Amino acid sequence: MQKLSDIQIDELLKLIEGWKLANDKWLEKKYRFQDYLIGVEFVQKIANLSEELNHHPFISIDYKLVTIRLFSWRAKGITELDFELVKKYDEVYKELMP
Amino acid sequence: MQKLSDIQIDELLKLIEGWKLANDKWLEKKYRFQDYLIGVEFVQKIANLSEELNHHPFISIDYKLVTIRLFSWRAKGITELDFELVKKYDEVYKELMP
Repeated sequence: MQKLSDIQIDELLKLIEGWKLANDKWLEKKYRFQDYLIGVEFVQKIANLSEELNHHPFISIDYKLVTIRLFSWRAKGITELDFELVKKYDEVYKELMP
Repeated sequence: MQKLSDIQIDELLKLIEGWKLANDKWLEKKYRFQDYLIGVEFVQKIANLSEELNHHPFISIDYKLVTIRLFSWRAKGITELDFELVKKYDEVYKELMP
């Protein structure tokens, strides 16, 4: 899968909420949770998805704030797969924090 | 709980493996796993422990590398509680990666 151009990334970012290109490198979003363990459950679900697709984002848990960073190492950039995952992660969040 | 002095921290660090004082601030250890989902299970267990004790470390998952950072916000430093948790985390790791 080829990496997307900056213009393509900008266009795709307009269609989603809360995501940005951080450090000119990775797609990043900070998810906030009302409950610590719901945030941890979110991480668990994201991790299972990542393993299925063999595409693992960087994840951090800072109490009720979970940060996700996506990057495609093989393509050395952002690919369509990253944007597909963005949507899946947002869906998981919506399920847990309706 | 009062924060420990630098000398106390140095002495306690000698008794444990892989932990260091990072950025002159928090206790940090990087745990490496053979399997991504075992690392995620480790995070789940650490999180449950943290919630029970109401003392939540910073956690990051970078594929098979899990980083834990401990700090006592109320004491504005490292306390005995942090060192107690260090032992518990190492035990959990030992169970998962015998």
